[in-house]
Amino acid sequence: MAEHLFLRACRREPTERVPVWFMRQAGRYLPEYRAVRAGATFWQMCRTPELACQVTLQPIDRFGFDAAILFSDILVVLPPMGLEVEFPEGGPRLAAPVASAADVERLAVPDPADELPFVMEAVRQIRRGLADRAPLIGFAGAPFTLACYAVEGGGSKNWEKTKRMMFGDPAAFRALLDRLARTVALYLEAQVEAGAQAVQLFDSWAGALAPADFREHALAAARQVFDHLRGSATWARGGGVPIIYFVNGVSPYLDDVTTSGADVLGVDWRADLAEVRRRVGGAMAVQGNLDPLALFAPEDRLRQRVADVLAAAGGAPGHVFNLGHGILPATDPASVQIVVDAVRELSSRG
Amino acid sequence: MAEHLFLRACRREPTERVPVWFMRQAGRYLPEYRAVRAGATFWQMCRTPELACQVTLQPIDRFGFDAAILFSDILVVLPPMGLEVEFPEGGPRLAAPVASAADVERLAVPDPADELPFVMEAVRQIRRGLADRAPLIGFAGAPFTLACYAVEGGGSKNWEKTKRMMFGDPAAFRALLDRLARTVALYLEAQVEAGAQAVQLFDSWAGALAPADFREHALAAARQVFDHLRGSATWARGGGVPIIYFVNGVSPYLDDVTTSGADVLGVDWRADLAEVRRRVGGAMAVQGNLDPLALFAPEDRLRQRVADVLAAAGGAPGHVFNLGHGILPATDPASVQIVVDAVRELSSRG
Repeated sequence: MAEHLFLRACRREPTERVPVWFMRQAGRYLPEYRAVRAGATFWQMCRTPELACQVTLQPIDRFGFDAAILFSDILVVLPPMGLEVEFPEGGPRLAAPVASAADVERLAVPDPADELPFVMEAVRQIRRGLADRAPLIGFAGAPFTLACYAVEGGGSKNWEKTKRMMFGDPAAFRALLDRLARTVALYLEAQVEAGAQAVQLFDSWAGALAPADFREHALAAARQVFDHLRGSATWARGGGVPIIYFVNGVSPYLDDVTTSGADVLGVDWRADLAEVRRRVGGAMAVQGNLDPLALFAPEDRLRQRVADVLAAAGGAPGHVFNLGHGILPATDPASVQIVVDAVRELSSRG
Repeated sequence: MAEHLFLRACRREPTERVPVWFMRQAGRYLPEYRAVRAGATFWQMCRTPELACQVTLQPIDRFGFDAAILFSDILVVLPPMGLEVEFPEGGPRLAAPVASAADVERLAVPDPADELPFVMEAVRQIRRGLADRAPLIGFAGAPFTLACYAVEGGGSKNWEKTKRMMFGDPAAFRALLDRLARTVALYLEAQVEAGAQAVQLFDSWAGALAPADFREHALAAARQVFDHLRGSATWARGGGVPIIYFVNGVSPYLDDVTTSGADVLGVDWRADLAEVRRRVGGAMAVQGNLDPLALFAPEDRLRQRVADVLAAAGGAPGHVFNLGHGILPATDPASVQIVVDAVRELSSRG
């Protein structure tokens, strides 16, 4: 049996059409997700394999996406490191953010296979539930993005505390990134061991950095994760699962990201995909990049936007269609179907 | 007497060193600003020429910046259009945001020379107070950025309402941009008439757009402003004051912005200034782009960052040193002095 379309596209092998999945495809825009969410908190859903499995499969059942992605949150690794997280309305909050070099020294580098068994169990259950209909993507937050939350204590407009540490005490900041990178590397390795068939690292806030800081901090720490993963026996046993590096706001760093060691570059909606392909297409597959807000356009205009993204990417091989950021809760599922259908029709080789 | 350094740099003429000013240089990081602010609301300061003049001159007196910029707010044009604005803690709020094509039709296109006389009086007072020590930059919000506030009713993470109108009812959105562009064009013309020696258009939120949407909406509306201004008798009488277009998050649009009709591209800190110079340097001067958070670094590292920005820009002609975004309130004024001194020392031609 041929390998999955999505996995072949990640490897820049020829495919009969462009595969499609959406970031946050298991989410609040789906009524069946909201039904599950009504009976559990977000954090409970992350920590209960049956619920995580259930919502991961929902968009596969409904739309037939070409890949499933584990339902979880990038912050699940923080509590085992010693940083408790709450999820009140308005976004995650840390009770005791990292404020000094001494705080960094106190952080553990846990083995997530032991500390986050519910994630590994979710991966196993999802693999069974998928029954090979689609491959499963595991994921983690990138070290820089996790550092932003760890230092800031939550979301932020300017990441002022984070950058004050980065600029004011770079040694402490690098030590923080190192602990996060080691934890994340073990975490992704454990997900692959449990059955993840690809992994994506989310660098949601790397786009807040000047290019030199991106190279020194975000990119170097992501590379540390990927180097560990590629050097592991688990990764080799898994046949070398594709590694996706999503950088939100990647445009200023296109000359740098090819050195990350990832197979696929996840691209936000602000980048011109034709330029991305020109500059990194020889080294990486690209994944993206429809503006999630375009799903609020009428059908004809939405289909045109899908066609524009496909045209900019230049078609297969080496393009995975996705949104340029997570789908928004107010999105109409009918618009998702329009995009999935349009990608299939418009990218098929006759 | 030779024309001011800053104005020559804007015109890409040879200069003996790189001029420097900071976005939001008249701001809360200065104790003398906070003293004025203690006796008046932000909005009162914008509407009282004596106070606006006083704080505009403070950073010139203290640091000798090479340009002054009018103290005001980009939202002052909205009330005369029919959109009332409040400034509570946490940022501006509109009582009745624009929600439909009918709301757009109701918006006035006022003549700001009549409706905002306090701004014009501030410009005149500042010119007298400067006594030609430095040129005065007038400014306005770009139509797209003003549309974001007008539709959203305040700041936003995803600009969901704005983009829902942009994607869902593009005709109404273009009509909104048209009214804003006509108002802003008259507003900048009135500032030049009153004595502004350069103007800057702030497109703070244009960086939320995919390149095609940037071209169709943000850039087209900015061009409308610049075309009007260049076609006005006021502009010709003023000798053609330099026009600066600041686009926050400009990296994805570097192939497009040269068609804006501005003389100078204002660049955020995430862009590689060497790349910007390669791609737009033949058509525009560039202004930027130190990360405002770099001012929290120790002196030696801060000086190195200044040197890096100067090196990336390749020196004069055609470079105006600035931050890549507004200075933050928590900044130490001593760090500002370090930057100003470093620019002067490092960019001087021996």
